[in-house]
Amino acid sequence: MQITGRIDAWKLHWEPNHPKPIKIIPDTFWDSDAGKFIEAVAYSLQNHPDAELEKQIDALIDLIEAAQQPDGYLNIWFTGIEPQNRWKNLRDWHELYNAGHLIEGAVAYYNATGKDKLLNVMRRYTDYIATLFGPDEDQRRGYPGHPEIEMALVRLYHATGDERYLNLSKYFVDERGQEPHYFDIEAHERNDDPSRFHFKTYHYCQAHEPVRDQKAATGHSVRAAYLYSAIADLVAEMDDSELLEVSRTIWDDLTGGAMYITGGMGPAHANEGFTFPYDLPNESAYAETCAAVALVFWAQRMFHIDPNSRYIDVMERTLYNGMLSGVSFEGEQFFYANPLSSYPHVNPYEHWSGIHTAEHYRRVDWFECACCPPNLARLVANVGSYFYSTNGDTLFVHLYNDNEAQAQLAGQEVSIRQQTQYPWDGQIQITIEAAQPTAFTVALRIPGWCHAYKVSINGDEQTAPADKGYVHLNRTWSAGDVITLTLDMPVERMISHPDVRHDAGNIALQHSPVVYCLEEADNGPRLANVALPRDGQMNASIDEQLFDGVGVITGDAVRVEPRSWQDGLYQGKSVTEQEHTPFQFKAVPYCFWANREPGEMRVWLREI
Amino acid sequence: MQITGRIDAWKLHWEPNHPKPIKIIPDTFWDSDAGKFIEAVAYSLQNHPDAELEKQIDALIDLIEAAQQPDGYLNIWFTGIEPQNRWKNLRDWHELYNAGHLIEGAVAYYNATGKDKLLNVMRRYTDYIATLFGPDEDQRRGYPGHPEIEMALVRLYHATGDERYLNLSKYFVDERGQEPHYFDIEAHERNDDPSRFHFKTYHYCQAHEPVRDQKAATGHSVRAAYLYSAIADLVAEMDDSELLEVSRTIWDDLTGGAMYITGGMGPAHANEGFTFPYDLPNESAYAETCAAVALVFWAQRMFHIDPNSRYIDVMERTLYNGMLSGVSFEGEQFFYANPLSSYPHVNPYEHWSGIHTAEHYRRVDWFECACCPPNLARLVANVGSYFYSTNGDTLFVHLYNDNEAQAQLAGQEVSIRQQTQYPWDGQIQITIEAAQPTAFTVALRIPGWCHAYKVSINGDEQTAPADKGYVHLNRTWSAGDVITLTLDMPVERMISHPDVRHDAGNIALQHSPVVYCLEEADNGPRLANVALPRDGQMNASIDEQLFDGVGVITGDAVRVEPRSWQDGLYQGKSVTEQEHTPFQFKAVPYCFWANREPGEMRVWLREI
Repeated sequence: MQITGRIDAWKLHWEPNHPKPIKIIPDTFWDSDAGKFIEAVAYSLQNHPDAELEKQIDALIDLIEAAQQPDGYLNIWFTGIEPQNRWKNLRDWHELYNAGHLIEGAVAYYNATGKDKLLNVMRRYTDYIATLFGPDEDQRRGYPGHPEIEMALVRLYHATGDERYLNLSKYFVDERGQEPHYFDIEAHERNDDPSRFHFKTYHYCQAHEPVRDQKAATGHSVRAAYLYSAIADLVAEMDDSELLEVSRTIWDDLTGGAMYITGGMGPAHANEGFTFPYDLPNESAYAETCAAVALVFWAQRMFHIDPNSRYIDVMERTLYNGMLSGVSFEGEQFFYANPLSSYPHVNPYEHWSGIHTAEHYRRVDWFECACCPPNLARLVANVGSYFYSTNGDTLFVHLYNDNEAQAQLAGQEVSIRQQTQYPWDGQIQITIEAAQPTAFTVALRIPGWCHAYKVSINGDEQTAPADKGYVHLNRTWSAGDVITLTLDMPVERMISHPDVRHDAGNIALQHSPVVYCLEEADNGPRLANVALPRDGQMNASIDEQLFDGVGVITGDAVRVEPRSWQDGLYQGKSVTEQEHTPFQFKAVPYCFWANREPGEMRVWLREI
Repeated sequence: MQITGRIDAWKLHWEPNHPKPIKIIPDTFWDSDAGKFIEAVAYSLQNHPDAELEKQIDALIDLIEAAQQPDGYLNIWFTGIEPQNRWKNLRDWHELYNAGHLIEGAVAYYNATGKDKLLNVMRRYTDYIATLFGPDEDQRRGYPGHPEIEMALVRLYHATGDERYLNLSKYFVDERGQEPHYFDIEAHERNDDPSRFHFKTYHYCQAHEPVRDQKAATGHSVRAAYLYSAIADLVAEMDDSELLEVSRTIWDDLTGGAMYITGGMGPAHANEGFTFPYDLPNESAYAETCAAVALVFWAQRMFHIDPNSRYIDVMERTLYNGMLSGVSFEGEQFFYANPLSSYPHVNPYEHWSGIHTAEHYRRVDWFECACCPPNLARLVANVGSYFYSTNGDTLFVHLYNDNEAQAQLAGQEVSIRQQTQYPWDGQIQITIEAAQPTAFTVALRIPGWCHAYKVSINGDEQTAPADKGYVHLNRTWSAGDVITLTLDMPVERMISHPDVRHDAGNIALQHSPVVYCLEEADNGPRLANVALPRDGQMNASIDEQLFDGVGVITGDAVRVEPRSWQDGLYQGKSVTEQEHTPFQFKAVPYCFWANREPGEMRVWLREI
């Protein structure tokens, strides 16, 4: 953040129309990186107080406050660089998007520290925005090209209790895609031709039709999932059955036809988003890290408006695979695009350019458009909040991993402690500690990938049918009560829907929610020629030497290659024998790929 | 040509700096379309005299002559639209390329009709070009960004005997890629930064290093093959062993690592060209029609400098597959890109944009950049010239099809008549007619795909070993002598080199030089789920009902799809059975695809 100028950029307002005090020119979306950074630090401070870090954030907030204009407006670019273009292009520029991320940062920092300086700055800015945009005669019927502020406004409402913020969020959602189209109107006002829109169609920003008419995941995938998350927020707040139906319909469209097995989404670089149903190319998969982060946001919200473990199944799949792959094992390098197959010279992040120069596609330290790293940071720093939720006297346990948590249940402070090797092993021990015996329900999620499980309490096996994916254990819990959940966890050969042409004839290996891949480091090159026999053995274990101990799958494979090859590219099988050479393959979790020596990688493997 | 304004555009010079007499603004490469059109008509007039058509061409030539400037310069765009930019950007604009095509048209028209008006126009233009570019102090060391004129100059030398044209061709070839780099120099002179070159690297135009150092097919595939064709021309004229070695090396690189089984080449839309070795994606294959045409040019020239049937094998493969697929069966619609797999919404010609709107990829009437249709026309109109060649008293028979031809051999006019159902059947009857018994050699090509053959003369089987792919029959031929060549022609299951990851586990069906494909019209949708059993039967026959009678392959196939499918995109095989449903597939020649109802298509088919 510091090196790239994203902090100093806030000083740009100092001397409008004079030489700038910094050398680095910001981009139109830099404000958002500051917002995400503050948000991530806020979550971190909740678990790991750090006075020095907090001081840095306070200093950044001072800069941000000083950059606020007298009318409340707050934006580096359109204050310091192009003041004449304020609010001229909601479709392509990022003013409302930036505001959203700063609001989320402000709320998180307020919740973590109680400090309300940035919160008040963002309230002033939001109050100003609320005067500009709305249904009244003297207002503009605008909304952001890149959704984000809609979610943020709901959080601001939670933090302040001010319903105007909730209503503004609803306004932005409901105005989206209405005719006459705001993006046409503002284009004409700029003397621009709307048909010259770089991305050709307003599907790109989910503004091709009113939101309540939308039925499919479309356009830029991060914009899409932020919008859908906001819709779910509004359903939760306003009990809007129509928007609930929209949410379910789009969810089914996404998970039924447009999501990678890793939870990645948005196959195309050109629009950073969706193309058409069942179009899931592996090698060129864009599957942006931010889209995986956004899908986690959306999935969690879907559970809250439609309690069913199917949403958490997707959330868990995304967390363990397509999101985690975005960051290196050491946590210091990042993928923007997360392909499911990798081959030397193929770079899905540069796929549009046709320039194939990099020998291997690898994580990098930073991006010019650095949305992904701070987005990962704010999710990872807050991942604990995805493990549990409460509803009345029910404690939902969504995710499994070693952890300790506290919850208020039936008026009592209750401690929960999980001990498990999940996701490498299906045995989970949950110890309940309450100051005194307390009656409440523990609802344990039975993951969708699990076809058999056992539950016992203090060693007594329970009859425990799952309801919407959760086993409800209702009793008076005493200190030291131990729940043991045993999830049957075989290695599963996964196949894709028969309309996914890219995966035909292939399987992917999944064990628990974790999707595995073959890497050249373990299996040699030319992974396309590796095939897994239909009746081959395979076995999951923990490799203690690999990445501090992670699950691996080993088993029977064959390499199918011609015994000899004459000249040229094509030969008849009448002259060229294909040889099947057996070997033992080793698969590693997809999320850890590209952390060792560079080489090929492949999730979908031919089965013969 | 008329409708798009490519004829009227020649009137643009009429009133420089005044309102133009035409409404249609030409593009910088329109001159080349006129050149290719004249060339195609010239070939057609040789076989099919047509006074009306000839009159039209004469009128067009009058327009072209009138557009020539006093100094000899001739170019629509840089006379009528941007006179200030003449010769400012050889890298990106197309002045020398256009000149090349007009020269080729002029020579062909002169050869066909004896009329030399356009030839003289182009000589004047070329004489002027030769004063501008060259090694002398007062000359510029330029050469075209898009090769073409190098070939044309050799033809102009043949037509006129003027060695200056041959030397200018050699100069353009040898100056290419030299340092200091001409494209850098001219960019600086325009106050442009060479690093802003849209295509990033001079590999795009094969100018990244001197031609004599080049070892691989690279960059824009049409530019590449035109350059390589010119190099072969120079070898033929100048006996240049170094350029012969360059030709062989690049040929081996192309055919060993960068050519589709159809003879298509250049997988990427982004640079309309090559990427890296063994990168041959099928669905997004660009494989431009013009590149196939150019490969035919190059292959024929390679045979002449290195007589071996392996070049003609590639020429034949390209003619019957990747070139012919560029035009519809009716001859009126065209493909620019020739993918080897097609799926609704996927348009390889628009692949770069990420906009997937067309339901099916189909041939169209014309293109804005219409290089391909007239290029096809000039090849198809002249295809007869690829069947035979003579060398001393040897008549080479390269291709087989019903045809009649005349040749001068041992001072006699000899007639040759072929009767065959080739490529659907391997039996070829060749009748020789000479006015009197004449001693000469008939050299019959044994195609590389053929592993067994028989030759008889007047019913007597001959011992006929092939030398460099040709069986030489040396005797005194009498009128009515009949050669019967029988080529063993089984259906061959072709596999790709083990480094071609896209075809792993797949086979393509080839019968004779013809590559077959499955279309949805015959085999239903979801062709990715179709697999051919390793030991399945298949049979080639002629379907008299299809396209006036063409070869088809039928045989055993299975459709592999799950028996049932619950929600979602991914399921474990422990819960989802894959069912193998046998059916009889029908494959049609790839070149005829997309001539019936729209649907999927696939060349590479899974083998199980």
